[in-house]
Amino acid sequence: MASSYLLCFTICSLVLFNVCLAQLEQVSQMSPTTEQRRGQQQRWVSECQIERLNAAEPHRKIESEAGNTEIWDENDEQFQCAGVTAVRHTIERKGLLLPAYANAPRLLYVVQGRGIQGQAIPGCPETFHSESGSQRKDIPRDQHQKVRRIREGDVVAVPTGVTDWIYNDGDSQLILVQIVDVGNDANQLDQNMRKFYLAGNPQQELQGQRELQGQSERERQSRHRRPRGSQQDNAGSVLSGFSERILAEAFNIDTNLAQKIQNRKDRRGIIVQVREELRVVMPESGREEEEHEREQGRRLQPLPINGIEETFCSARMKHNIADPKHADVYTTRGGRISYLNAADLPILQHLQLSAEYGKLYRNRVESPHYNQNSHSIVYIIRGDGRMQVVGDNGESVYNGQVREGQMIVVPQNYVVIKGAGENGLEFIAFKTHDTAKISSLAGRTSILRAMPVEVLMNSYQISREDARRLKEGRQDVTA
Amino acid sequence: MASSYLLCFTICSLVLFNVCLAQLEQVSQMSPTTEQRRGQQQRWVSECQIERLNAAEPHRKIESEAGNTEIWDENDEQFQCAGVTAVRHTIERKGLLLPAYANAPRLLYVVQGRGIQGQAIPGCPETFHSESGSQRKDIPRDQHQKVRRIREGDVVAVPTGVTDWIYNDGDSQLILVQIVDVGNDANQLDQNMRKFYLAGNPQQELQGQRELQGQSERERQSRHRRPRGSQQDNAGSVLSGFSERILAEAFNIDTNLAQKIQNRKDRRGIIVQVREELRVVMPESGREEEEHEREQGRRLQPLPINGIEETFCSARMKHNIADPKHADVYTTRGGRISYLNAADLPILQHLQLSAEYGKLYRNRVESPHYNQNSHSIVYIIRGDGRMQVVGDNGESVYNGQVREGQMIVVPQNYVVIKGAGENGLEFIAFKTHDTAKISSLAGRTSILRAMPVEVLMNSYQISREDARRLKEGRQDVTA
Amino acid sequence: MASSYLLCFTICSLVLFNVCLAQLEQVSQMSPTTEQRRGQQQRWVSECQIERLNAAEPHRKIESEAGNTEIWDENDEQFQCAGVTAVRHTIERKGLLLPAYANAPRLLYVVQGRGIQGQAIPGCPETFHSESGSQRKDIPRDQHQKVRRIREGDVVAVPTGVTDWIYNDGDSQLILVQIVDVGNDANQLDQNMRKFYLAGNPQQELQGQRELQGQSERERQSRHRRPRGSQQDNAGSVLSGFSERILAEAFNIDTNLAQKIQNRKDRRGIIVQVREELRVVMPESGREEEEHEREQGRRLQPLPINGIEETFCSARMKHNIADPKHADVYTTRGGRISYLNAADLPILQHLQLSAEYGKLYRNRVESPHYNQNSHSIVYIIRGDGRMQVVGDNGESVYNGQVREGQMIVVPQNYVVIKGAGENGLEFIAFKTHDTAKISSLAGRTSILRAMPVEVLMNSYQISREDARRLKEGRQDVTA
Repeated sequence: MASSYLLCFTICSLVLFNVCLAQLEQVSQMSPTTEQRRGQQQRWVSECQIERLNAAEPHRKIESEAGNTEIWDENDEQFQCAGVTAVRHTIERKGLLLPAYANAPRLLYVVQGRGIQGQAIPGCPETFHSESGSQRKDIPRDQHQKVRRIREGDVVAVPTGVTDWIYNDGDSQLILVQIVDVGNDANQLDQNMRKFYLAGNPQQELQGQRELQGQSERERQSRHRRPRGSQQDNAGSVLSGFSERILAEAFNIDTNLAQKIQNRKDRRGIIVQVREELRVVMPESGREEEEHEREQGRRLQPLPINGIEETFCSARMKHNIADPKHADVYTTRGGRISYLNAADLPILQHLQLSAEYGKLYRNRVESPHYNQNSHSIVYIIRGDGRMQVVGDNGESVYNGQVREGQMIVVPQNYVVIKGAGENGLEFIAFKTHDTAKISSLAGRTSILRAMPVEVLMNSYQISREDARRLKEGRQDVTA
Repeated sequence: MASSYLLCFTICSLVLFNVCLAQLEQVSQMSPTTEQRRGQQQRWVSECQIERLNAAEPHRKIESEAGNTEIWDENDEQFQCAGVTAVRHTIERKGLLLPAYANAPRLLYVVQGRGIQGQAIPGCPETFHSESGSQRKDIPRDQHQKVRRIREGDVVAVPTGVTDWIYNDGDSQLILVQIVDVGNDANQLDQNMRKFYLAGNPQQELQGQRELQGQSERERQSRHRRPRGSQQDNAGSVLSGFSERILAEAFNIDTNLAQKIQNRKDRRGIIVQVREELRVVMPESGREEEEHEREQGRRLQPLPINGIEETFCSARMKHNIADPKHADVYTTRGGRISYLNAADLPILQHLQLSAEYGKLYRNRVESPHYNQNSHSIVYIIRGDGRMQVVGDNGESVYNGQVREGQMIVVPQNYVVIKGAGENGLEFIAFKTHDTAKISSLAGRTSILRAMPVEVLMNSYQISREDARRLKEGRQDVTA
Repeated sequence: MASSYLLCFTICSLVLFNVCLAQLEQVSQMSPTTEQRRGQQQRWVSECQIERLNAAEPHRKIESEAGNTEIWDENDEQFQCAGVTAVRHTIERKGLLLPAYANAPRLLYVVQGRGIQGQAIPGCPETFHSESGSQRKDIPRDQHQKVRRIREGDVVAVPTGVTDWIYNDGDSQLILVQIVDVGNDANQLDQNMRKFYLAGNPQQELQGQRELQGQSERERQSRHRRPRGSQQDNAGSVLSGFSERILAEAFNIDTNLAQKIQNRKDRRGIIVQVREELRVVMPESGREEEEHEREQGRRLQPLPINGIEETFCSARMKHNIADPKHADVYTTRGGRISYLNAADLPILQHLQLSAEYGKLYRNRVESPHYNQNSHSIVYIIRGDGRMQVVGDNGESVYNGQVREGQMIVVPQNYVVIKGAGENGLEFIAFKTHDTAKISSLAGRTSILRAMPVEVLMNSYQISREDARRLKEGRQDVTA
């Protein structure tokens, strides 16, 4: 009898024990979630627990019909700290990047090629027209808003919530690198980059399905980003989420056309091949165009939509930063640097962003410096070199090579030295302040030059002669 | 013997097992806490993990002697995302909403009735006087600051930290709906709405005692908000927290009066019945008053308190947005829309808020649009209708009915279509930007109209004719 | 047999039970981590769950060769809420505080003594010269940027990322108290104060090694701050993190000197004894200097570095706030108060900070008031007194004594009353807004005075006579 009791008890006890274990497991499973949230939390508040930067290649690639899109890892600590998402579009000839807007201001740099960009701003006048592709007399000319020619070296500003599209009408690939400044005040959502497509069926970009298989378990479980899996089936343009009927009513079209513009079966991705070529008549590129833009700005008044003047209508949105004649610093032996801020391109004040372009000749080393009031997101356009970045503890957070196509964040106030390799070094740096300021430690306009020689002598425990050498060893301005 | 062993062991084992379970339970209880904190975190950093919006009714109601106050659920994800708290006051005839200030700017809309509002700004001149209720010659006239008449359709701005009171001197209930923009930069505390009452004993509002019994377990345990329970007994006006003696000293009054103004036994709530009627002499309502306000603004200079000119003194603080003659968009068949921003009411630039008023005629559908640079907190004043809201993945986050008294948040950049029902639809939308901009997808000033027809053809894979139809199907401006 | 079964089962069961307990323990250990993160989270988002303020002494002290540095506890809830770090430097005669910059704007107050401050701003002209200490004719005069004389009562502004150094050339200790406004928008890193030293080897300050032994277990495990332990060995100036070779190249100096300026063996701390005295020629102190500053501002134009005018070059950076002739409020019996904001010192608009200086005579009580749009970080310069601070629930968060050398945060909108003790009370309050505004409840420019007497009667349920007494009991302006 005792043994039957025992058996009963044993079974009962094991059952209970399993319940206990099962619950334990459940509780334990919450822990990784908790850990992941820690990461997320750091992102939101951009904690910059930078221990190591890296010269990063893009993290995932989405193929489209007429090009591809590469996105840098949003979970990479350096991008989280800077509060930006970085993207590179490669648009093939006659490729069209579909119209979309984002929840934060964007700064684009044209790495290669030429094309046309349109920014659609409701309330601005439709002052441009396209010739119809078929040239048939019975088709009236199409009126639309200003479009702008973009070419290698251009920095293009796109404000938060402004829809733009880009068309490659050049002879080679059009390559664009851009940052989306999700940490910007103008983004009132959260620090996820959100791209709202007006057309197409861009689930691939948004879900990053392909590389999900390639990434680590940790990242897959990560909740840094919104879980996209559940929305896998219905990801699409913003139009796809409405009912056909209300869409037809709102656009005053039939439900058949409403269904078409929802593009639910579209498999072309976000860069599509243009069948009917775009023929936009526009002033010739170069100085005339800019003058035209400016003059147009003076003459045209926007419709009084939203109750306030739409100053965006006449604003210039681009500037060629790579043009040698715009260089701010130039030395025959060192290289050149151009700064682009609100003084040159006023819209940048609105965007709270600016840029710096640099070309270092082979084996040249620039002055040690730090960004006084912004982060600096550096993209290597061409060439290679080395970089050292040092933080507030004197800790080295980067000491290594950089090469074409890589991106690295230099956090605010961290000291950096870039040196060109055998092939020189050409870079664009996006800055998270509309009037980014640099403080050089060496050279003619440096901090050390600004201090009395006795301060240097006593600070570094060096002789007067050494202090003078330190102040005057480097004579150029910056590069 | 074995069985006695067994019995002993069984008891012992069950005891231990219970300990184990008890501990497990304890640990498990942390999990919901953890989960809730997640919610909190989202709030602080306004993560907008919006999966479903809802047309929300107020969540709790606090009865006062002469009215009631209803508060929307601060833990509702949509309000967390927008960073606002929404409140509706219903003030009975001769009811006085006690003087108080908040840790964030507020925008009020007068849904119904008329009354008087005073904003007390230290350093501004006391240019108004009230007749004494008793009309006794021996009582000198009372001097105080400007008060303003408010009436149905008025939007009233109250800056952060400014004390205001409201008195219903009309013939019907005075109903006010307001948002407190806790996500505003001007709030340096945290995202809890904090109302600092200068009088009364408002523990009910602050503790929400009544509805605590009605709400779910989850909510009760929630730590989204500061735990109020422990402060239950001493919640009161800001004066109640001081010692009588120091209060008497500081006001230069006797301790008896000091004790009175602490109102510790007051049970009237935050809207009290006025015994001695307020008789404020003021210019007649309407145009004269506004002109008077403007003129007064020119003449009066504030005392140089705080070392800088108090521009608030002469600032207009209200604007009637529902007045048809202020409509920005009007179509005989569709309805009308009015925008109110810093161009009309300059103080809004300081508050970083603006508003939109709309009246859609029966069965009319407005153009699909998104808010370019702000959230939109929509309150249905009268009528009913349906709304569809779509996010960046094309996911539908709302598709349903809305009716009088409900509030719904349309997050920044999310696309929305509103349609009126059989009774038409009248709404006020509070915007979290001083110059909120709307981008319409259809109509005369829309994004699609701004794009070349070939871009539409290739984006949507439609014919030239369909693209034209899409651009030109809707001809009105917005509504 | 049953008993051997029993034995086996007992052992087996106990083993399993231990496993269960061990796992439980593991899970439980996560809870404190979770709890700590909660704290951290509050910091980042500055949640102000203020339940108790305290009049705080500095938390850790770092001795240097020629002075010491005291830092208030960054984990103290009140400083977390205000988003500031507070520091006090005591510089001995001929001591030099090494050149450094921080990731946030700073406001200094000179508590005692006199000295010289230099702010090195790249691109600004080098218009000052020092005489060489040795007076040898063969050594050319040294050119450097403007330095400014600082003395007791001065408030000195230092923008984000601007390098400054301070030298005590007076006859007594130079004592400075400063706040670093890490919660400021200009800080794009995180809410850790980061000081970037250009010289020296300041590991002690950064690691706070000494007091680590003194602090509680909770604090040691805390992750509010970056773990410094691992960086213990290589903490140093920003130069120390670079390789000697690249430093030599970048400064165009030999590697021997490069090694020297890395100061890796330096044990002097951050305030060093000056061997070769600094002899800066400058205009005499007082009015002439300020006039000189202003005039200089008009004449000198900065180099066009960074593509935009460096308005900092000519900006005044200091103002004597304790000077009785600058008092904004003065009563013969009460004391005096001076406000310093952008109207007096325009650079403060850029820093988003301002200050208030007060001197209360013995046993005087100031008017109850709150800070409308900022926190107030109060430092007691001299004397003692008592303070009461009350929050939105009427809860008393501070009611106690304050004395010389203590610091206390009065959060935005919380109501405060300060009273002087037998020795009077002298204080400086740093404000986290460039135009901080105060709302007094009592006195000639108060909220109660601004309201109609009937509003007071009905709010407090008091008679007309009492309401008048309340409005007019206190007749002074503020103090």
